[in-house]
Amino acid sequence: MKAFKLGEIATRFELELRGDSELLIQGVCGLQPGRAGHLCFLADRKLTSQLDGSAASAVILDARSAESLPQGAALIANNPLLAFARVARLFDPEADFAPSVDPSAVIDPSAKIGEGCQIGAQAVIGAGAVIGAGCRIGPSCVIGEETRIGAASRLVAQVHIGRGVQMGTHCSVQPGAVIGARGFGNAMGPEGWEEIPQLGSVRIGDRVEIGANTSIDRGALDDTVIEDGVRLDNLIQIAHNCRIGAHTAIAACTGIAGSTRIGARCMIGGGVGINGHIEIADDVVILGMAMVTRSLKEKGMYGSGVPIASAREWRKQVGRYRRLEKTENRLKRVEQHLQLDAADAPQEGDHD
Amino acid sequence: MKAFKLGEIATRFELELRGDSELLIQGVCGLQPGRAGHLCFLADRKLTSQLDGSAASAVILDARSAESLPQGAALIANNPLLAFARVARLFDPEADFAPSVDPSAVIDPSAKIGEGCQIGAQAVIGAGAVIGAGCRIGPSCVIGEETRIGAASRLVAQVHIGRGVQMGTHCSVQPGAVIGARGFGNAMGPEGWEEIPQLGSVRIGDRVEIGANTSIDRGALDDTVIEDGVRLDNLIQIAHNCRIGAHTAIAACTGIAGSTRIGARCMIGGGVGINGHIEIADDVVILGMAMVTRSLKEKGMYGSGVPIASAREWRKQVGRYRRLEKTENRLKRVEQHLQLDAADAPQEGDHD
Amino acid sequence: MKAFKLGEIATRFELELRGDSELLIQGVCGLQPGRAGHLCFLADRKLTSQLDGSAASAVILDARSAESLPQGAALIANNPLLAFARVARLFDPEADFAPSVDPSAVIDPSAKIGEGCQIGAQAVIGAGAVIGAGCRIGPSCVIGEETRIGAASRLVAQVHIGRGVQMGTHCSVQPGAVIGARGFGNAMGPEGWEEIPQLGSVRIGDRVEIGANTSIDRGALDDTVIEDGVRLDNLIQIAHNCRIGAHTAIAACTGIAGSTRIGARCMIGGGVGINGHIEIADDVVILGMAMVTRSLKEKGMYGSGVPIASAREWRKQVGRYRRLEKTENRLKRVEQHLQLDAADAPQEGDHD
Repeated sequence: MKAFKLGEIATRFELELRGDSELLIQGVCGLQPGRAGHLCFLADRKLTSQLDGSAASAVILDARSAESLPQGAALIANNPLLAFARVARLFDPEADFAPSVDPSAVIDPSAKIGEGCQIGAQAVIGAGAVIGAGCRIGPSCVIGEETRIGAASRLVAQVHIGRGVQMGTHCSVQPGAVIGARGFGNAMGPEGWEEIPQLGSVRIGDRVEIGANTSIDRGALDDTVIEDGVRLDNLIQIAHNCRIGAHTAIAACTGIAGSTRIGARCMIGGGVGINGHIEIADDVVILGMAMVTRSLKEKGMYGSGVPIASAREWRKQVGRYRRLEKTENRLKRVEQHLQLDAADAPQEGDHD
Repeated sequence: MKAFKLGEIATRFELELRGDSELLIQGVCGLQPGRAGHLCFLADRKLTSQLDGSAASAVILDARSAESLPQGAALIANNPLLAFARVARLFDPEADFAPSVDPSAVIDPSAKIGEGCQIGAQAVIGAGAVIGAGCRIGPSCVIGEETRIGAASRLVAQVHIGRGVQMGTHCSVQPGAVIGARGFGNAMGPEGWEEIPQLGSVRIGDRVEIGANTSIDRGALDDTVIEDGVRLDNLIQIAHNCRIGAHTAIAACTGIAGSTRIGARCMIGGGVGINGHIEIADDVVILGMAMVTRSLKEKGMYGSGVPIASAREWRKQVGRYRRLEKTENRLKRVEQHLQLDAADAPQEGDHD
Repeated sequence: MKAFKLGEIATRFELELRGDSELLIQGVCGLQPGRAGHLCFLADRKLTSQLDGSAASAVILDARSAESLPQGAALIANNPLLAFARVARLFDPEADFAPSVDPSAVIDPSAKIGEGCQIGAQAVIGAGAVIGAGCRIGPSCVIGEETRIGAASRLVAQVHIGRGVQMGTHCSVQPGAVIGARGFGNAMGPEGWEEIPQLGSVRIGDRVEIGANTSIDRGALDDTVIEDGVRLDNLIQIAHNCRIGAHTAIAACTGIAGSTRIGARCMIGGGVGINGHIEIADDVVILGMAMVTRSLKEKGMYGSGVPIASAREWRKQVGRYRRLEKTENRLKRVEQHLQLDAADAPQEGDHD
């Protein structure tokens, strides 16, 4: 069990210390119930009252919260969540590893494995692949020919990296992710679909995270591109020739059709569907389950879809929706009866 | 080929026998076309007429159906579907296995494998893992360090169970499922997203089924919890710190965002999206493709979404939907013209 | 690096040659920017202007385009995209392989491996499996007992083919696909759900493509069937006992519930949800994210769903949608006031 003195943590992460620097911290915990000998964090001032009854021995909070809570051991941070994320790594059992190559791994003699790598059991590394220093290639990963993985990247387990894919440094790929499968390109021939060879690849920047069972297809002629710092959750589909801009985060179950370009620093919710061949600007936020049928050229927040109701009300809603034509016609007849002109009715609002 | 006498089946499953107890049953079949020497079932009285022309040699049905169908060999059950499920197991080629450890499996010397287990080819079992008696760990499964799998559980093949996950007894996990991947927690730092270590785990109860390519993330600080008897179909996303109540069944392609709590005995359709940090009560039924944006505190049936139409009608529907503001304004003007007050219009119905 | 003379390509694919038959073609490229020594294609006359500045050394186009563009080396085809697909295969680095069996593969002695197969590292092939001639079974694939894979099929890597599945010739399966997992069939017993054994299998025709992380469940009693020439993209769910008609193409993230029958030559968009126990006719086109709640018995194009808006407008739309009952009531009151009968209002249009 690791443990660090509170003062040592303050120094290492350049945080202001309040209280006993010798206090021994054995781990991190949530505000409630908290845990003795552990460090929690307060990122949202609305939760301040929860700190009262917490069993945690110390807290990371911002200066303003620290002022209003003058008691107890604390580390003061501009961004408590970020500070917590960094401190928590001290206690992450996955953070440390011993370089090694499992004897069951099948590594082509022409592959180059950097220094300090860990290659797990049953892994397969193809001809001409280049694995940077300090990578962890977990059990049962399959890395294709001529693939390049940048230094300090981690493929947790059972990851697939196809032929010729290029991945930057400090990437993290969760189990079941498939990078570089064939793009879905077919031409109709006289006897059915024929495959259009997908001769592009996938290029992935530095510090990219790719979630479990997420699929990123190779490009048809050019590459599919995932820029630096992108965060992809689980079960996401990125079709051929998409480009995802730097530091964009996408939640689970979202699908993006081919050749779409998404800007930098976007936040895309879960279960979103995004059409092919469109463009999403930088700094766009898309709420969950939205149906993105067109380009979004202005930054801002977008959404669509009809939220939940009781099934009885839902069925009525569908009926009313289908009756909208009838409703409009009834209204028109009333207007005609009254000799009012529909075009004159007042308009207002935002019609993006 | 296995075969059982009808009387033997009746005795074993405590069903009432009608007809020849010596009749040899070689398998199970559907009502139509049915198959000689096989046993079918009638769970829905509306299908009674299909029994007439069936080639099946015997049928499982309830007492009321049996009365109205006095001919033929039968097993009489309170719940014919349940009885059929149990009888069908007699003929499941997957039900039997010989304990064995494939020599290609890589099992850490510190892992404990219970009696009567089958460990498949290319499987990987990490340090400190504990596998209960009678488990089947199929080919290419990867089981992390310190993981516990309860007795009589089955991981079919290529399953990932991450570090420290705890699974109960009699669980069944289909290929490609990923349990215990990193939760999707990131904090924005000065140079982009930084991972918030996910230090919780996943706790899974007894008799849980997890479908192909389904992902269940580990918790951030506390655990993600799947209670006893839960049934998860394929390609489901369960984010960090969710809790799924006992005996809840979830159909394919549904995604549940982080920290959401779902009650017991819920039935959740396919393609549903459920927001994070909400609560669904016990015994809630959610229809397929619903958009669950808020807590559902009362049991009952819920749904949302707009069903299919011809593309031509769909485009018109979208136009009318986008014109609703205009339509309301036109109506308001009519009311003003007639000096009617909108607030006085009659209301009715159920507005959950 | 492979290279072919333009005249040689013309002859091999029966295309009309224009220009220098000795021109050396080293690969294929897009119209823009194009690449010297490479061959591009023009499938859409609207893109003709892009050909002007292209660096490509030759182009595949149709006769009409060739007439209006009399300059430059060209191959003239009835279907330029199809011709391009075929020519591009010449340059596909994945197209060639040397037959081999990796020594790390675990192949049951009773399995039959056809001539000229490539069996990748860490693959597992079960008892009684039959692999046709010229198949490629990539690294870490798991093929169950009694499974049959037709000649010239390719399982790229980490594919799962369950017990008894039958696959035709010339199929292509991307990494992470799971074929033949248990169908999601459970019966409620006194202490919770009990599995209904899934005793059917999956039958897959010839020239079928199955995408990354797509799941096709085995049938309950009869088989799940995927007919010849079907194209399935990534992350698709096909539940037990579905039948997908020949040459139907389905885009990513679509889910199809149990026992649904889909006709031939359908085109189904991404993120579509299709109910169980319904029928979709031949030649149906379903737009992305549609909610298919009922059978579609006529060929044609269908869609549903509400497209994206700004979040502010979206919230207003939802409000108006929920107010539709009120709006109808207000309108009814106006009609009553005016002594107009709603049933007399004009109707028009297509109400599929």
